[in-house]
Amino acid sequence: MNAEIIAIGSELLLGQIANTNAQYLSRKLADIGINVYYHTVVGDNSERLKQVITTAKSRSDLLIFTGGLGPTKDDLTKETIADAAGRNLVYDEKAMSAITGYYKKVNKKMSDNNKKQALVIEGATVFNNDTGMAPGIGFLEGETHYILLPGPPKEMKPMFSNYVEPYLKQTVNHSERIVSRVLRFFGIGESLLETKLEDLIERQSNPTIAPLAGDWEVTLRLTAKETSAEKTAVLLDEAETEIQRRVGDFFYGYGETSLAIETVELLKERKLTVAAAESLTGGLFSKEVTDVSGVSSLFKGSFVCYTNEAKKQLHVPDKLLQDFGAVSEECAKELAENARKQLNADIGISFTGVAGPDKSEGKEVGTVYIGLSTETDLAVHSLQLAGNRESIRARTVKHGFFDIMKHLQKGE
Amino acid sequence: MNAEIIAIGSELLLGQIANTNAQYLSRKLADIGINVYYHTVVGDNSERLKQVITTAKSRSDLLIFTGGLGPTKDDLTKETIADAAGRNLVYDEKAMSAITGYYKKVNKKMSDNNKKQALVIEGATVFNNDTGMAPGIGFLEGETHYILLPGPPKEMKPMFSNYVEPYLKQTVNHSERIVSRVLRFFGIGESLLETKLEDLIERQSNPTIAPLAGDWEVTLRLTAKETSAEKTAVLLDEAETEIQRRVGDFFYGYGETSLAIETVELLKERKLTVAAAESLTGGLFSKEVTDVSGVSSLFKGSFVCYTNEAKKQLHVPDKLLQDFGAVSEECAKELAENARKQLNADIGISFTGVAGPDKSEGKEVGTVYIGLSTETDLAVHSLQLAGNRESIRARTVKHGFFDIMKHLQKGE
Repeated sequence: MNAEIIAIGSELLLGQIANTNAQYLSRKLADIGINVYYHTVVGDNSERLKQVITTAKSRSDLLIFTGGLGPTKDDLTKETIADAAGRNLVYDEKAMSAITGYYKKVNKKMSDNNKKQALVIEGATVFNNDTGMAPGIGFLEGETHYILLPGPPKEMKPMFSNYVEPYLKQTVNHSERIVSRVLRFFGIGESLLETKLEDLIERQSNPTIAPLAGDWEVTLRLTAKETSAEKTAVLLDEAETEIQRRVGDFFYGYGETSLAIETVELLKERKLTVAAAESLTGGLFSKEVTDVSGVSSLFKGSFVCYTNEAKKQLHVPDKLLQDFGAVSEECAKELAENARKQLNADIGISFTGVAGPDKSEGKEVGTVYIGLSTETDLAVHSLQLAGNRESIRARTVKHGFFDIMKHLQKGE
Repeated sequence: MNAEIIAIGSELLLGQIANTNAQYLSRKLADIGINVYYHTVVGDNSERLKQVITTAKSRSDLLIFTGGLGPTKDDLTKETIADAAGRNLVYDEKAMSAITGYYKKVNKKMSDNNKKQALVIEGATVFNNDTGMAPGIGFLEGETHYILLPGPPKEMKPMFSNYVEPYLKQTVNHSERIVSRVLRFFGIGESLLETKLEDLIERQSNPTIAPLAGDWEVTLRLTAKETSAEKTAVLLDEAETEIQRRVGDFFYGYGETSLAIETVELLKERKLTVAAAESLTGGLFSKEVTDVSGVSSLFKGSFVCYTNEAKKQLHVPDKLLQDFGAVSEECAKELAENARKQLNADIGISFTGVAGPDKSEGKEVGTVYIGLSTETDLAVHSLQLAGNRESIRARTVKHGFFDIMKHLQKGE
């Protein structure tokens, strides 16, 4: 079975957004062993979409459409596909009651075109939209499988992984099991990681080992093919053991995780609490901790002390700021220590530095100090980072999480 | 003239990267008045690429290819296109000497397949690659314009803007100017906005008015075509005036901006300072303020008071927390007031509520209170938001910025 991903939306053809849906779906389909041979993007135009469907049907078995399921007049995906496949549109009761329920809940008037979102293709499987209005649709017509998904990634992604993936696994019969395992690394560049694993990457064909860099992290995707899940697991374990032996110091987790999630997990396990003082990072560390649900037992809070005035509120002495400046090891230590004590936490972490675009206190852009305080320990990690404001802040926070993880693992 | 952007590369079909080249090129082409009707992605496969070219030729005048110009065996774009267009490949001397020069400079041995990168299509215009090895290629065959560009964005982008854009402007004769203006709205849904503007959207063809929803905001893109920039400005002004009359209450800015950026601008103008107390939002408001550079004069800092313990640090009375709970109007008021006073700011803002996934203090997920305190005013904005944890937090922060903007504009 080979697939084609068809995105519908003029905003893509105008370059207002990138087709990240196609990337997400391609990766997901690869994981379940469906080859993707084409991506197509077409505008909100019924004639052109019809031609795209004709071409796609002639060369692909599975057509996955994203976008054009919205309430407005230029959303015409369902109408066009129903027409091309010779099927009717009917109202889906469940979707309709979800839509009316939503408008009741938020106490807003429902407009007539909102009802349009509850239309589905007759006889099709309907996929719930847990994060929006428009349901997804799946059906087989002749030899061609059609899947219709909403365009907004925050609706499309959960719908795909919760409902469409199981549907496809059931529909597509596999004798071959393809299983991927993703290892995540921090603090090592892609080229150095690749150099350390060069012989493995070249020699290995089952599992294949594919490095990918992004967001100042590197991931390795190991993909094994075998006749059973157990056999793929053996192949993956063997390859991973050798990889961990060589670059395990930089490893922090598997699959769709993050440094924040792994740090929170570790803190929960150890029943430890954390508090922060954020100057450079301005709340980003706290935001990432609280992105994870259920952290109120371990995250005591933080002080976003962007100005010296706010630092003094956290009892950083005037003299320290005068003698060493806010961007200093001394200030990082004081902030970490005071955050921990003030909020009665086990671990205090602090971030101070220069995010740019301009120098500060005569210190270069990218100068960073991360303070880490516990009852028995007080350390500073100093860094010199390249990049712009956004990347300096994001990487600093990642280093903060990694520092906490390493500190906790050291104690093992 | 209408264009199709064809990306070649298995890494796109595997989802390892997103097709950001298509986004960049689409935006660039829109700016110079060339319509893009299709994007296509195909793998490094000669047969399938040939079919894609046949389809593209039948529906588009300008085919822009990205990728597959590299030195390896699976890079076959030039060979396949030369074949499809009935042309020969020849070595380009300038490209060849650049390649040999590079290998001399880095003192590495040049492999035979590196030479392949200097091959170009006979009789074509060759575009310099200032940031890599593979030159670009442009030619007209029959009625079809072909442009071949390298895949890596850091090579493709400078090549396009330095060489291909002038080439296209010369090739495509314009008497027409196309200018877009983007208006950004918050606090109104896409369908309601569209209902209020329905007659305009349908009647208008110059400028066209295209709504787009995303990130809990709605944008309207107005696109005018005329013979001069002045004339497009008149058309855009006329349309905007009527739009602002109808939905101006929800308008907050133009083009590539954000609620955070506009709020910071307004605070700077008024020389006012702000401080925050973030329970529900856990640092996200502060993070977004400090994403903007140069805010230390106006952002006094904030307290991320995720737990009641941290709220007491901010002098929220025990009794208030017992009587009303942390998720209450009363607590929002106290937090906003205390943040403002403690950090000596003009405006104090606070966020408390339930992000989920579970209820808290018996209050529903999505219950939100935003407190706003100034020396003369103390108000609470209560909201009931639908969605998941991430979206509730993100939308709450957007409401906070919008509340500050509206408060400041009210004082006008």
